[in-house]
Amino acid sequence: MAPRMAKPLQEFALIRRLKSQFARPTPDLVQGIGDDAAVVETTVPIWWHFTTDLLAEGIHFDLKSAAPRSIGYRAAIANLSDLAAMGATPRHLLISLAIPKQVRQSQIYDFYRGLREACRPYGVALIGGDTSASKTGLFLSITLIGTTTKRRALFRHGAKVGDLIYVSGTLGDSLAGLRLLINGKTSRSSETTRSQLSPFHRQFLIRRHLHPTARIAEGQWLNTGRLASAAIDLSDGLSGDLRHICEESGVGAEVEIDHLPLSLACRAYAKARGVSPVQLAITGGEDYELLFTAPPRFRHTLEQQARARGYRITRIGTIRPKKFGIQMTTEGRTQPLPQTSYEHFRS
Amino acid sequence: MAPRMAKPLQEFALIRRLKSQFARPTPDLVQGIGDDAAVVETTVPIWWHFTTDLLAEGIHFDLKSAAPRSIGYRAAIANLSDLAAMGATPRHLLISLAIPKQVRQSQIYDFYRGLREACRPYGVALIGGDTSASKTGLFLSITLIGTTTKRRALFRHGAKVGDLIYVSGTLGDSLAGLRLLINGKTSRSSETTRSQLSPFHRQFLIRRHLHPTARIAEGQWLNTGRLASAAIDLSDGLSGDLRHICEESGVGAEVEIDHLPLSLACRAYAKARGVSPVQLAITGGEDYELLFTAPPRFRHTLEQQARARGYRITRIGTIRPKKFGIQMTTEGRTQPLPQTSYEHFRS
Repeated sequence: MAPRMAKPLQEFALIRRLKSQFARPTPDLVQGIGDDAAVVETTVPIWWHFTTDLLAEGIHFDLKSAAPRSIGYRAAIANLSDLAAMGATPRHLLISLAIPKQVRQSQIYDFYRGLREACRPYGVALIGGDTSASKTGLFLSITLIGTTTKRRALFRHGAKVGDLIYVSGTLGDSLAGLRLLINGKTSRSSETTRSQLSPFHRQFLIRRHLHPTARIAEGQWLNTGRLASAAIDLSDGLSGDLRHICEESGVGAEVEIDHLPLSLACRAYAKARGVSPVQLAITGGEDYELLFTAPPRFRHTLEQQARARGYRITRIGTIRPKKFGIQMTTEGRTQPLPQTSYEHFRS
Repeated sequence: MAPRMAKPLQEFALIRRLKSQFARPTPDLVQGIGDDAAVVETTVPIWWHFTTDLLAEGIHFDLKSAAPRSIGYRAAIANLSDLAAMGATPRHLLISLAIPKQVRQSQIYDFYRGLREACRPYGVALIGGDTSASKTGLFLSITLIGTTTKRRALFRHGAKVGDLIYVSGTLGDSLAGLRLLINGKTSRSSETTRSQLSPFHRQFLIRRHLHPTARIAEGQWLNTGRLASAAIDLSDGLSGDLRHICEESGVGAEVEIDHLPLSLACRAYAKARGVSPVQLAITGGEDYELLFTAPPRFRHTLEQQARARGYRITRIGTIRPKKFGIQMTTEGRTQPLPQTSYEHFRS
């Protein structure tokens, strides 16, 4: 019956180090790490956005194969991407971390390094959190706080029949990258894959998986210009996330399969592996691209402004009445979009 | 290599049920559960308070011995108590939950029932969160959001030399209750204890452990009346938490041991077990009472108002210069307050 300390003394050292490295004063921060709660001041009418993501060892990541820095980076991106889909500016971060004793201190610092790296471009400050020992796996939960002007945000529920459906970037890259990472370690067939896939494409896909981008600037542009009628980020995959928009908006959707934006690397991977690149694009999660809808009258403005700003957006379909369901069209044939949930990593 | 679904379909059923039972519209809530982020509106200058607590199976609770409802209740109280110590009004809650497959759905609902029970008196609404499968233990992280008027909050850093040190309620009850729960299941010596402890005292102590109270009203009173110079909640125990106030305020402290408020039940338990009740009061965590300091000129007002409102507060010492350290005095003898960290549950 040895007592278990939930707050070992090294936790205080960890908190001090994080505070000095990651916690930065922002104009609205009254109290950061070091009190019972963090305190943030609001002086003008504003909308606050709160999003939480949980990552569990063995489900979302594998410490045997993934670098702690990459885990931290991707955890932050998952949350940043949620705020991108609201058109919000990310501001503050709280993190809960349960640490098994076999995890080394250096791994924890690397994890925070990745987290900080993802947050740095947006000036996001770590304002609080909690750490604990874990008797089993590593668990982390991030709460990210952002803001928009009052009455100005992108929701899932605004899509109207006739609206055009767009995505940013390219789809399926992250899943292809994940599969390359897994097969690179295990099966023999991967040797064949690697020989047919150029190192450049291979690196591109792996990087898209390990080092994705949150489309913060794109989300803010869509929001402040009131260009999008609904938006979501692609974390579960096109199939699942489009379904969320349709459910919340009470509409159906038609996806034109031939319009799906695929990277050259994704096409090359699909060819080498003998799989369908469309399948990767539809079911692949964690691309962290934006999926949004816009009234057809905005089409010209939207596409012109995107070009001018250097944002890649692609029109992939149209919002239909609810009774239409969620269908995909290719070469004149229409069939239901497969209903899938994203596989994170496989073990 | 079976795919692991991070978002099983039953999660959506869970979210729907929680949304209907726990998510309630509040005047400032623009968007609750069901979008990429929750959205809350602020129209007047305000201070927002954010606190996060992580609970890990095997560290903070044991599913074999603790009821899920009690785990949920106590998780919420830990966070509510943090806001009480800021003098804040709790408003919104986000929860991350990693669920192992051996945990039954009914246990998860019971857990949320406990959470809701703790939050209901304060009108706190569940506005978001994340759930996931877990390959190992049950993990949960709660982020609680509250508010105070601008420039009006209780911090750890305001204590001045000469200030009086107070605590609310009684100390050590929760630890005594925890030990009763553990020994009730294991050792033979507990039989002796139970025979010497009245059922009433036994129940009181167990209830103080399983069903603690967050001192929200007391915190708001201290804050709005500007009566306290510093405050913290007693989650790690008097010894550890007083140390936090002293560190953040750059002061020392003298605790008068004979003044520590002890319940009759705690004294009876200590006598039956042959342990020191003072030891329980100093090292016992999770009492969730408030520890605060106040200028001596407020003594009369403070004690009179507390009586009038029915709040139990006890003066237990005085803030001293930093070089004094943190000492305890009993019968004219002064010695350092033992430095301990709270044992959560023992296995």
